[in-house]
Amino acid sequence: APVIIAHGPGVDTRPPSGLPAPVAKVAVTGDFRLGRRELRPQGTVVRIGETSVGDGSLSVFAGPCAVENEQQLLACADVAAHYGSVGLRGGAFKPRTSPYSFQGLKWAGLELLAEARRHTGLPILTEVLDPRHVERVAATADGLQIGARNMQNFELLTEVGKSGLPVVLKRGFGCTVDETLAAAEYVLAQGNDQVILCERGIRTFEHATRFTLDISAVALMKQRSHLPVMVDPSHSVGIPALVEPVSMAAAAAGADALLIDVHVAPEQALCDGKQALLPDDFGSLMGKLELLAMGLGRKMAGVVRPALADAER
Amino acid sequence: APVIIAHGPGVDTRPPSGLPAPVAKVAVTGDFRLGRRELRPQGTVVRIGETSVGDGSLSVFAGPCAVENEQQLLACADVAAHYGSVGLRGGAFKPRTSPYSFQGLKWAGLELLAEARRHTGLPILTEVLDPRHVERVAATADGLQIGARNMQNFELLTEVGKSGLPVVLKRGFGCTVDETLAAAEYVLAQGNDQVILCERGIRTFEHATRFTLDISAVALMKQRSHLPVMVDPSHSVGIPALVEPVSMAAAAAGADALLIDVHVAPEQALCDGKQALLPDDFGSLMGKLELLAMGLGRKMAGVVRPALADAER
Amino acid sequence: APVIIAHGPGVDTRPPSGLPAPVAKVAVTGDFRLGRRELRPQGTVVRIGETSVGDGSLSVFAGPCAVENEQQLLACADVAAHYGSVGLRGGAFKPRTSPYSFQGLKWAGLELLAEARRHTGLPILTEVLDPRHVERVAATADGLQIGARNMQNFELLTEVGKSGLPVVLKRGFGCTVDETLAAAEYVLAQGNDQVILCERGIRTFEHATRFTLDISAVALMKQRSHLPVMVDPSHSVGIPALVEPVSMAAAAAGADALLIDVHVAPEQALCDGKQALLPDDFGSLMGKLELLAMGLGRKMAGVVRPALADAER
Amino acid sequence: APVIIAHGPGVDTRPPSGLPAPVAKVAVTGDFRLGRRELRPQGTVVRIGETSVGDGSLSVFAGPCAVENEQQLLACADVAAHYGSVGLRGGAFKPRTSPYSFQGLKWAGLELLAEARRHTGLPILTEVLDPRHVERVAATADGLQIGARNMQNFELLTEVGKSGLPVVLKRGFGCTVDETLAAAEYVLAQGNDQVILCERGIRTFEHATRFTLDISAVALMKQRSHLPVMVDPSHSVGIPALVEPVSMAAAAAGADALLIDVHVAPEQALCDGKQALLPDDFGSLMGKLELLAMGLGRKMAGVVRPALADAER
Repeated sequence: APVIIAHGPGVDTRPPSGLPAPVAKVAVTGDFRLGRRELRPQGTVVRIGETSVGDGSLSVFAGPCAVENEQQLLACADVAAHYGSVGLRGGAFKPRTSPYSFQGLKWAGLELLAEARRHTGLPILTEVLDPRHVERVAATADGLQIGARNMQNFELLTEVGKSGLPVVLKRGFGCTVDETLAAAEYVLAQGNDQVILCERGIRTFEHATRFTLDISAVALMKQRSHLPVMVDPSHSVGIPALVEPVSMAAAAAGADALLIDVHVAPEQALCDGKQALLPDDFGSLMGKLELLAMGLGRKMAGVVRPALADAER
Repeated sequence: APVIIAHGPGVDTRPPSGLPAPVAKVAVTGDFRLGRRELRPQGTVVRIGETSVGDGSLSVFAGPCAVENEQQLLACADVAAHYGSVGLRGGAFKPRTSPYSFQGLKWAGLELLAEARRHTGLPILTEVLDPRHVERVAATADGLQIGARNMQNFELLTEVGKSGLPVVLKRGFGCTVDETLAAAEYVLAQGNDQVILCERGIRTFEHATRFTLDISAVALMKQRSHLPVMVDPSHSVGIPALVEPVSMAAAAAGADALLIDVHVAPEQALCDGKQALLPDDFGSLMGKLELLAMGLGRKMAGVVRPALADAER
Repeated sequence: APVIIAHGPGVDTRPPSGLPAPVAKVAVTGDFRLGRRELRPQGTVVRIGETSVGDGSLSVFAGPCAVENEQQLLACADVAAHYGSVGLRGGAFKPRTSPYSFQGLKWAGLELLAEARRHTGLPILTEVLDPRHVERVAATADGLQIGARNMQNFELLTEVGKSGLPVVLKRGFGCTVDETLAAAEYVLAQGNDQVILCERGIRTFEHATRFTLDISAVALMKQRSHLPVMVDPSHSVGIPALVEPVSMAAAAAGADALLIDVHVAPEQALCDGKQALLPDDFGSLMGKLELLAMGLGRKMAGVVRPALADAER
Repeated sequence: APVIIAHGPGVDTRPPSGLPAPVAKVAVTGDFRLGRRELRPQGTVVRIGETSVGDGSLSVFAGPCAVENEQQLLACADVAAHYGSVGLRGGAFKPRTSPYSFQGLKWAGLELLAEARRHTGLPILTEVLDPRHVERVAATADGLQIGARNMQNFELLTEVGKSGLPVVLKRGFGCTVDETLAAAEYVLAQGNDQVILCERGIRTFEHATRFTLDISAVALMKQRSHLPVMVDPSHSVGIPALVEPVSMAAAAAGADALLIDVHVAPEQALCDGKQALLPDDFGSLMGKLELLAMGLGRKMAGVVRPALADAER
């Protein structure tokens, strides 16, 4: 992927070794330098495995909130792949409000994700919590996720920036759009432009939903930044019945990608199960998104869907 | 329109004189009784002039935030009609944060709205602020709007309920979805079921936009209530460049109607001009909404659009 | 009370008939004109009955959230008077989220308040909801309260302004400090400077308390405006165990007055009973406030407390 | 300090080696186990250097937001000591929204803090950002601060828990009281009970102040938890003129300690200078706090104040 190098106070103008030469060199100031839309009006394309995010298509990443065991993960991964996901999400390291909650399978979970990738061919996207883990997680994962609680964990942002891997940067639920763009700068400043901004809801007085998805922020981030924007409807709303309408809204507002919790047995999930879609509901959503994408003059990203492939034979 | 009568503590079971007999009589309790989706699973259709809101179509009401003078209003009304609005919005009485701001043309503004209706054929939707004004405003307007600042002005809600006219009830920017549904009960309890709930953004810490549009609330209100749901993107975001993506999102989330500020000279507007769309941008949005509606399996409400009628000749 | 008259766009420079001549005439602009601290650096004193609010003392107004019946009201009024309240609060007209909740005893409640005043000598402070009621309520009450839900009911503000009675203006729970100051201008612009600003909590994501008391706003309103500031800890927190510490904090931050829910049988209250203090707890709070006031170099306002008067004999 | 050991799912019942035997063993469940008030009704006393926080006294920690250079730090430390601070605050590692802002002097800043300690005798409290730094920072500092942005950086919480040093845990500005208590469990679960909870304002729609200090949370945390509570007025309000009233309010609400930004030349500060108190204003505040403490029946913690010692000679 092309590298932008801006020069100005505090910005290192040398591309990190191993990365291609910069395509542009622009003088910038202020807190928001490298991510500005004007620097790359055509937008940045982020590659996760075989998938391109930010090329105008609509990509869906799906999977369970947490990796729980081999059977659960492979079953969820099959569902994701079957209905046209372009990537598999799944948490091996889980940041939990309480130390007494399930903290994820950790390294064993990462191994299971690698197995699910071999099984389905889908690239894997997983969260990293600790700067000391970045190198080892990056050796396996196709994309690194920074969770909302770590959006301003600047040491961690710097480490994932150095990894060179694609990064999904979730907006902190107490953070503004401008702070999200500034957090992305920590990754970009390491010479890594493979950043996807992810809106996942903010804290407001309205508790009918778990968080309040800031739909305007999706459009705002697209207009201000050249980075692709993802939306996580599942964690925003926390209610399966709202995942579909909110996913549709996100796509219509211009989101490049969606991140959707899918689980084969949500009632048994060890983490955030109650917000996950059942396989059939996920399939139904994918069908509606495909029609919606047509109405928007866009296409769904991803491999030919098995059902369609069958029908074509 | 059919009348639902629920019986239970505090609910008068007799339909107001002049209204048709109830079609249902259901025992209900709690704060949310008459608006519940289960009472009318097919949803309520609200008729404003010739327009039906809530029948599955997507309706757009457009016009200036405030009525300023004859020339301005007629020009804006022409734009609204030309691009396919089904109704004209315009404030004659303006609730302003400061007593030193323009407070609207008041009764003279209402006369101008009536003139604009004669000129374009569009039904007029206008705000009422004072219980003492309801009868006189209702004699002219086709639909009454309750502004966000008055959502819990219960005396006013009762009066507009008695008027029998369609009511657009804007969600208070500090109020929850449940409080909005409870406020609608004040109107419904008067035997007036012609209520449209309107999401127009809530107050949050994010000030990049004027308010934060709660897109999940659109779906939630549709699921919980049988009343149609409108979205006001203009007042939510306060930035013209965000009106289009947010309007698209609202439609995709299931909104029945949109309320859009359009102005022929926003820079000269006496109230909230900076958020209004220019005529061309409004036309462009209407075109995109039409394609989006197709992707959603819905149609745009309204009269045949002039441009299309010309082309068909 | 002295009248400030400012001149400038939109400000009528003539004092309303029956009010004294202005003591100052100042050119002002912007949304915040008549309430600005600079206009009256020494601060405004508001007189409710025999009580002065804003003279440096700390005043407590107490009583039940709603007037329920004669026995309840008189018992609560006795408690308020016994422990040194300088005024009695009690709602005759109650703005309720739901039309199915108790709406107050209305005019009969107002009569009971007048009886409680005769019984205890305390001036009465009560809420008015409807511009059509202002004249009649003002004929009985010593002070009018504008509830949080009506802070931007500008027709009502104008009417209470015209009444000339002292007005307690509660901050809307979704409104900013600046909007509160602008709302006060609607009353001031009628030539009525007897306005007390009341902080009663705002809506935030934190739901451990009913609202979030904005303690900084107390100091900010004192600094920006010459009007006295009251705090309503009871409605802010909604939890009796927090009323004492929050009352202490409000006094320490500079509040001129407190508004406290007291009930002789909170578990039977028809409205917001669960936040009311029991008589003993109210007495304990009053004792602590008296010591706190000494630490602040202030004194508690009000008549000699019965217990002290007994002791002095 | 005594160690509480709770037993239950996920709780290790063995005290970490080197710590004293537990004084209590209680079966607990839920997210909030070790910090519950019932486990230690008398409250926990946290020792930072010679200072006890949580023993009923009111402690003030003061100093510059960031360590900038030797001269600035020593001058600020002198002011803090002179007026009766019991500890020196100062950031060597600064978490900044933007990578282009001053990030602190880092290890050199820590050395300067140690020098300021030698100079004034005050224990030093400083922020740690990275789990990899904890051991080295802990070797110098007397207390570790976890900033609001890292309140849910659970890897970091675990490391500071292991360090055994006193920890000031700042509430995340988007986090609830319950989440703050749950975050403290991460530290407590390592056998380290030396935790001070710090309220420093939350994000709300009100932007007249930088954050909204949640004064009720101070009382709520004291009631729910046995841990001492600190308040940081400076970062909450971001306006020097509000630091005094808000500090007074915090003390009156029951805070055990205050954390106050003081700077000898705020206009030259490299970080958050505009909210720092000038030396004279800090001295004035300390005098008022002393009188307030008397009104509250409490005393100010700390060494004999030089001015007083002089006078006593």
